[in-house]
Amino acid sequence: MPPASRYTYLGPEGTFTEAALHTLPEAATRELTPMVSVPTALDAVRSGEAQAAFVPIENSVEGGVTATLDELAAGSPLMIYREVLLPITFALLVRPGTPLGDVKTVTGHPVAQPQVRKWLGANLPDALWESAASNADGARLVQEGRYDAAFAGEFAAAPYGLEPLVTDIHDAENAVTRFVLVGRPARPAAPTGADKTSVVFWLRTDHPGALLEVLQEFAARGVNMMRIESRPTGEGIGRYCFSIDCEGHVQDRRVGDVLMGLKRACREVRFLGSYPRADAQQPTLREGTTDEDFVTAADWLTRCLDGRS
Amino acid sequence: MPPASRYTYLGPEGTFTEAALHTLPEAATRELTPMVSVPTALDAVRSGEAQAAFVPIENSVEGGVTATLDELAAGSPLMIYREVLLPITFALLVRPGTPLGDVKTVTGHPVAQPQVRKWLGANLPDALWESAASNADGARLVQEGRYDAAFAGEFAAAPYGLEPLVTDIHDAENAVTRFVLVGRPARPAAPTGADKTSVVFWLRTDHPGALLEVLQEFAARGVNMMRIESRPTGEGIGRYCFSIDCEGHVQDRRVGDVLMGLKRACREVRFLGSYPRADAQQPTLREGTTDEDFVTAADWLTRCLDGRS
Amino acid sequence: MPPASRYTYLGPEGTFTEAALHTLPEAATRELTPMVSVPTALDAVRSGEAQAAFVPIENSVEGGVTATLDELAAGSPLMIYREVLLPITFALLVRPGTPLGDVKTVTGHPVAQPQVRKWLGANLPDALWESAASNADGARLVQEGRYDAAFAGEFAAAPYGLEPLVTDIHDAENAVTRFVLVGRPARPAAPTGADKTSVVFWLRTDHPGALLEVLQEFAARGVNMMRIESRPTGEGIGRYCFSIDCEGHVQDRRVGDVLMGLKRACREVRFLGSYPRADAQQPTLREGTTDEDFVTAADWLTRCLDGRS
Amino acid sequence: MPPASRYTYLGPEGTFTEAALHTLPEAATRELTPMVSVPTALDAVRSGEAQAAFVPIENSVEGGVTATLDELAAGSPLMIYREVLLPITFALLVRPGTPLGDVKTVTGHPVAQPQVRKWLGANLPDALWESAASNADGARLVQEGRYDAAFAGEFAAAPYGLEPLVTDIHDAENAVTRFVLVGRPARPAAPTGADKTSVVFWLRTDHPGALLEVLQEFAARGVNMMRIESRPTGEGIGRYCFSIDCEGHVQDRRVGDVLMGLKRACREVRFLGSYPRADAQQPTLREGTTDEDFVTAADWLTRCLDGRS
Repeated sequence: MPPASRYTYLGPEGTFTEAALHTLPEAATRELTPMVSVPTALDAVRSGEAQAAFVPIENSVEGGVTATLDELAAGSPLMIYREVLLPITFALLVRPGTPLGDVKTVTGHPVAQPQVRKWLGANLPDALWESAASNADGARLVQEGRYDAAFAGEFAAAPYGLEPLVTDIHDAENAVTRFVLVGRPARPAAPTGADKTSVVFWLRTDHPGALLEVLQEFAARGVNMMRIESRPTGEGIGRYCFSIDCEGHVQDRRVGDVLMGLKRACREVRFLGSYPRADAQQPTLREGTTDEDFVTAADWLTRCLDGRS
Repeated sequence: MPPASRYTYLGPEGTFTEAALHTLPEAATRELTPMVSVPTALDAVRSGEAQAAFVPIENSVEGGVTATLDELAAGSPLMIYREVLLPITFALLVRPGTPLGDVKTVTGHPVAQPQVRKWLGANLPDALWESAASNADGARLVQEGRYDAAFAGEFAAAPYGLEPLVTDIHDAENAVTRFVLVGRPARPAAPTGADKTSVVFWLRTDHPGALLEVLQEFAARGVNMMRIESRPTGEGIGRYCFSIDCEGHVQDRRVGDVLMGLKRACREVRFLGSYPRADAQQPTLREGTTDEDFVTAADWLTRCLDGRS
Repeated sequence: MPPASRYTYLGPEGTFTEAALHTLPEAATRELTPMVSVPTALDAVRSGEAQAAFVPIENSVEGGVTATLDELAAGSPLMIYREVLLPITFALLVRPGTPLGDVKTVTGHPVAQPQVRKWLGANLPDALWESAASNADGARLVQEGRYDAAFAGEFAAAPYGLEPLVTDIHDAENAVTRFVLVGRPARPAAPTGADKTSVVFWLRTDHPGALLEVLQEFAARGVNMMRIESRPTGEGIGRYCFSIDCEGHVQDRRVGDVLMGLKRACREVRFLGSYPRADAQQPTLREGTTDEDFVTAADWLTRCLDGRS
Repeated sequence: MPPASRYTYLGPEGTFTEAALHTLPEAATRELTPMVSVPTALDAVRSGEAQAAFVPIENSVEGGVTATLDELAAGSPLMIYREVLLPITFALLVRPGTPLGDVKTVTGHPVAQPQVRKWLGANLPDALWESAASNADGARLVQEGRYDAAFAGEFAAAPYGLEPLVTDIHDAENAVTRFVLVGRPARPAAPTGADKTSVVFWLRTDHPGALLEVLQEFAARGVNMMRIESRPTGEGIGRYCFSIDCEGHVQDRRVGDVLMGLKRACREVRFLGSYPRADAQQPTLREGTTDEDFVTAADWLTRCLDGRS
């Protein structure tokens, strides 16, 4: 099967990432290859062995997935083409026939722990938690008898011969994980009217108020920021780059204008793509920031330059 | 003589305006026509009867010349092509032979009064001041014997048969009046590297923080404001337009970008021209705001749009 | 009559200023003394010869009254205690029996001219305008037969034996002049809930973005600016002070906080008073800017300092 | 031993955390108790079983330690009293006598991996990495023979009977981890002139430009931000709180003023302490932001309120 039809994803099979990937229509016609880590999933794209990689980027409880943020910011450039939002609720998976009273040891991915802590405290206060490498790996360890129960997606029960003893477990209401489909740089998909643009930028180091200035580039054009993550640059304590999602598409004049502003104001900017919003919500535009307003202003400037204002 | 070679100016003859006009090299080859007011001087340009008008726009002691500011903001568009700075010092003009002790009544333009008040208090504390229509008119009234002395430019003595009894009178150090040469809209003169751009804009009325926003359009591109005057729009108390001079030329990318920002952020903008600074001082550019930085950013955006970032 | 009961005002009698002064209830019990200029009216207050002076400060057509603005900014401190808004419409005053067709020459204060220009063009296109020292002075000159008609307030007809031939003349809708009652510094009147605060400040000279910074002191506390006037400081072209009115009373915490911010950010600040708004309009407060919010924040900071947060 | 003399820390023994803790003079006189996680270390302080906890908060390569940031932001309040910066370089620990050529499997904490990746690629390209629960745990697993070598601090060799085969391994120059000593709220230590203040705040949710506004509270007082971390609030994608360190001490007027500004502008603010900077660097103060400037402004406002301005 040629690489053009292969998608890698953060494995193993049976995780929320795989469940989210299956919500993409084209997943049905691709070879889906689980990888052991975000870097290996993305490196397969960089090397041309895969067309795209599907990885988590943000969790509404745990925050940004630093491996994904850092990989997108470094190395040869990649771009985001799609996003998927998946509500996260856990099932308690046990070997068939295990009653709740017999569950003395539980496992799951470390990220799952804070999302089930309250439930555990209320329902299995004496159970001992040990972390597994992934939620699916936790299921496997229960299958092998190492633990009595695993927190994982309900969809992980069948592949490992387990049954969901309790479902819909989640301490935080509305826990959601956001996944992105990442490929090599190419022309972004056409605007849909409800788009998102991702970018990462590095501040000029000798300039304390620089973040404020950069955020004003967004504010000045009425472009709403939806996510901001600070990440260390590796150059020492206090040196950051910022990963930002904003409303709109790079083809929208106001967004293009913000990006050019960032390019001038920052030491470095990396464009990470424009793609449809998973929630399909259209932005509210501030007066003076439509494409037409930008065209009108550019035409007027041309007339000023020509003495026809 | 064809209108193309005629310059109007704020008369009468013998005023500081005429003295400033003569500092322009081309004044020697133009027909110079004094007019009774700023509006009539400018209307002659609008109607095509004169090529340009030379009028005061700002005084370092008295502030903006509101007739000029308001005329430039309203009516059919005009543009500024040149500026002249003239230091203002007064001479006390008397009929030949008059000693200082005989000066009981003095006259001059109302604008002159605050600039000679301290000198009067110290040297002629009992002299009675009455205003004249212009400094030159004051000289004429002394010639006619209506007053004993007039404050005017030293150059006004000879035309009216007077002599300067005292010269270099000025309460404020560095008193300067700024004059502009105004014509019908045409392509601005080429940038010199030390230029100034003038603009007037009307805020959107339903927006209290609007002035702050507009000033940030300048700040965001490191374009320094040199003059700001608020003027009522005539729509009621609290409604203003703002007349601004900033460093740079409309052909400078950072200035063009500011102007487009104003065009989008304001209800209306009127471009009043880009022209050489009288003081020939070059601006200090902030990092990221040179023409090259703007071109680099635009090229980069094009590559982002094409998937080659 | 003791000075405590004397108010000076910008004369002569029969002007809009006197008409506005009579709208103050206490005017009925004061000795009202017309003065020849704004400075002389204010100097009488400074010297203790009058309790207060009543002068125009702003006109919705002509802009700030520079004599008033500059006098309040310089010399020994004064404070504003009251404001009055007076709609400005003109009457055409003639000697009894004069028909409109006989009006060949008209007069009035120079400020009146732009406000009746259109009416003149439409109704008396051939009439010759000459300026008078005041609107009342124009009426007197008509009485004396020097001109055929004067533009003035309708109230100026009777004192000069004239009759209003046409009334309610005004080119701009809603033309309004704002007057202020000025006294020596004292404790401001208690807040009414619909107050205004006036201040004048001088920027630190070596700091180009300083105006933006100072305006952010207002914006950061949600304090709405109602008037801003730039005035030259007399130190040279490009050096300004700014005269500002904002919503609220110095006793309002958010306004006091703005003032302290100005005091720290500016070279100099002069507090010109807090007084009831003539339009009695109450401000809309932004979340987090009520007095209670300020008290809560101060209490919280005290707890932080004490280790009880 | 009473709790007042006990410090917990993120264990196990032999980690960088323990090494950093020993740089505090008082560590010599405290009972130092390793805990299995940041939450358990901090819960011992909350419950009164320990006087303080010593935990990592930030790594110049990996970024914020989310467990620490999230624990400080939630639960019963805690405060930071000290910070320690520890340069991070790794040693490759082996059983005595093992030559580099025999190292086929390596282990270490997952955070160590990106910091030694390049070194591994260059020196042990075929070695297999598997993560351990901590760097010290990795050393133990080498001792037990499970792996051939562990990346850990050089100080971890002796306790586990290992020897450092290679030292000073670090991909990034200047890799540093920052640790904090955390206790129950109390009066902060006195200012030293080189202090840092930590705070976490939650934006009002219905307000898109809110982050910009809050950052302006810092900028307006010239208070330099040194760290900013966004963390999800758990209320859904796009909802953040921000953890910030800034220069200065809560007793500095400018810092107190910023904190009160945050208190008013934010939904919630939590003060996390003021403490000496580990690098002892004094801040550069902007004009108008010294304690004296604040006192002067407050005195001036009092005079305005009293009519003595």
